[in-house]
Amino acid sequence: MKINSQRLQDHFEAMSLIGKIGETGTCRPAHTELEKQGFELAASWMKAAGMTTHIDNFGNLIGRLEGKNPDLPVLMMGSHLDSQPYGGRFDGVAGVLCAIEVVATLTENNIVPERPIEVISFADEEGWRFNKGLFGSRGILGKLEEGELQRADKDGITREQALKDFGCDVTQFKASEYKEGSIFCFLELHIEQGPVLDLAHKPIGVVSGISGPIWWTVKLKGMAGHTGSVPMPIRKDALVGAAEIIVAVNEIANQIPGAPTVGSVGTINVFPASRNIIPEEVVFTIDLRDIDLDRRNRYEKQLRDRIEAITQKHQLTYSISEDTKSDPRYCADWIKEIIHNECKALELDAPELMSGPFHDALALSYACDYGMIFVRCKDGISHNPLEYSSNEDLALGANVMLGTVIQILKK
Amino acid sequence: MKINSQRLQDHFEAMSLIGKIGETGTCRPAHTELEKQGFELAASWMKAAGMTTHIDNFGNLIGRLEGKNPDLPVLMMGSHLDSQPYGGRFDGVAGVLCAIEVVATLTENNIVPERPIEVISFADEEGWRFNKGLFGSRGILGKLEEGELQRADKDGITREQALKDFGCDVTQFKASEYKEGSIFCFLELHIEQGPVLDLAHKPIGVVSGISGPIWWTVKLKGMAGHTGSVPMPIRKDALVGAAEIIVAVNEIANQIPGAPTVGSVGTINVFPASRNIIPEEVVFTIDLRDIDLDRRNRYEKQLRDRIEAITQKHQLTYSISEDTKSDPRYCADWIKEIIHNECKALELDAPELMSGPFHDALALSYACDYGMIFVRCKDGISHNPLEYSSNEDLALGANVMLGTVIQILKK
Repeated sequence: MKINSQRLQDHFEAMSLIGKIGETGTCRPAHTELEKQGFELAASWMKAAGMTTHIDNFGNLIGRLEGKNPDLPVLMMGSHLDSQPYGGRFDGVAGVLCAIEVVATLTENNIVPERPIEVISFADEEGWRFNKGLFGSRGILGKLEEGELQRADKDGITREQALKDFGCDVTQFKASEYKEGSIFCFLELHIEQGPVLDLAHKPIGVVSGISGPIWWTVKLKGMAGHTGSVPMPIRKDALVGAAEIIVAVNEIANQIPGAPTVGSVGTINVFPASRNIIPEEVVFTIDLRDIDLDRRNRYEKQLRDRIEAITQKHQLTYSISEDTKSDPRYCADWIKEIIHNECKALELDAPELMSGPFHDALALSYACDYGMIFVRCKDGISHNPLEYSSNEDLALGANVMLGTVIQILKK
Repeated sequence: MKINSQRLQDHFEAMSLIGKIGETGTCRPAHTELEKQGFELAASWMKAAGMTTHIDNFGNLIGRLEGKNPDLPVLMMGSHLDSQPYGGRFDGVAGVLCAIEVVATLTENNIVPERPIEVISFADEEGWRFNKGLFGSRGILGKLEEGELQRADKDGITREQALKDFGCDVTQFKASEYKEGSIFCFLELHIEQGPVLDLAHKPIGVVSGISGPIWWTVKLKGMAGHTGSVPMPIRKDALVGAAEIIVAVNEIANQIPGAPTVGSVGTINVFPASRNIIPEEVVFTIDLRDIDLDRRNRYEKQLRDRIEAITQKHQLTYSISEDTKSDPRYCADWIKEIIHNECKALELDAPELMSGPFHDALALSYACDYGMIFVRCKDGISHNPLEYSSNEDLALGANVMLGTVIQILKK
């Protein structure tokens, strides 16, 4: 049994017209008329695949293929149709369209599953509009936080207003939540958004888990002075300290060759930022991720020790503000094993790799076992109109997902 | 023979009221009504000291004590009365008021010099108003550059307009220039603007020269990517490269303990500056100074080699734009010797030290021999209302200057 790769390709092309920017880009913000158009198109394909559809009160599009036993926990698949403001055609879309294609193939082959299957396009995965993402996937699990509805976008429209305009009843969130135990497992196919598969010339990867980032904001304080007149030995140069810490982050993340640890500094700001004044204050961010929590904890300790030593050496004071600290969330071994087996059946040599970025699967990981399939994307480029995955690779991913679903349905 | 320290103190206090900000600060911008008020006050003291005064077409205030032989090259002293926008009471002012005090003392002691003595408050030493300094001292030497009059301040007023409003005739610059050979030598007393004297508990320093800075703007280009998904070994992280270069600048400037070399990075900007995107481009400035030109040239070569190696290692491209490259300008040995002797005569153990910052003396160094006397300033703080030199130290500096002038007049 195989998916229909021509139909899948047609669906990608049709969806790419909604919110199209430039030749290959997409701007389809959450809870908007454009997303609604995307939902209507996807819903038409869901219906053609035998599913009933509705939009819940979080703004999620849900298609359901009823099972022989409607009370069994659901096999859920999905991702999102909202995009980055200057995004591509595949991020999120791949997971929704491939899942629909899988159900369409089952239906065409007259397979009626024992348990219900649902395909969800989760609302506002990207999070840029209201500066908080995974909205729909957290919503169905009752994981929204205080004040989320009052967050406003750049035009001053609140999440609450946007949801109302979208047709949601924000007083009835409870009705859209999933009870504990009602989801059997979750599958998400996604483009890798990194270069590992492309560099290895492998179309498909099996995700081991979503790595948990530690996000810090580090502030160093030294003493300003004229760059021409303060002798080197008595300086308290906050930027020299920051530079040594940036080098340390890089060394720590690189210490085990081949390990998936990543450590980065993406932003840095200097005060007073004059070419002839010694930097008095430097603020920068650190992003440290690993799929191995023990190792990440060890590295965090190393990094704290290095910051302590470096700031002492340069007579700086410092503060570390911990902005985020998420644990890695591992994919279920039994689902990974099925995905690996399905790859082998398709003669694919699929490496196992961790996901650095978040996905809706991260939210679902707290409610059920989950698995993820990565599809190669060119040069690892994502969140950009240049984002590209080939039809062949996407079809391969959909076939791996189809085989995986068939195996899971046997459980 | 000694200067009148009470009168000197009174002059500092009176001048500090013009453009006073806060308790101890000064804002007296170049070519303004406030500077004019400062000039009028200083001119009144010059006249009391026996000098004739005028403001030239560059906006310099010039006081002249006629010599027995008016045709001999002039002994020139001076500094500036314009201040930083958020400046202190002593930067520049010290050099003008101490020079006036020296002449007043000579006059009181009925000394009529063989050669004329001039005291100049140079126009716009600071340079922040039109983003180009040493205006008056370059002006009298015919060293203004193309387009300088068209530079505008933040309110859109051009240098030309500001000079006209100040009463200058910008069509008659030639008349205000000094002919080659017409200046015998130049003396400038200035607060150190650095912490060397304060840390050494020495009130007075003998300047060896003004170090020449190399100012570079360095741009590194790598490749952006998601901090979560691009493995460490294949990154082209421009900020890691920049950090290693900042560390290298610091190492190079520190390699000879006790040497006066200084190397600094004062500004850094990252693109795209997102905490979860690997820096694609980093632009930063380098400031490298040394009084020893051979050593500075050696260090410049080391730095270029390090930048080449570091960027290769991280697969970055780079460019270096040389914004400034001034040679160190050494004080005349014979003037330094006189200053040292005068310090000894006053039982001062005066260390010799280089000047990192520029001064009007830098411009004059191209026209005549020069010498500089540094006065200790508290904690090395300058360009700030907290700038402070004690009356005692300033009086000591003025007495060293007085002795120096008396010795020079014997030449």
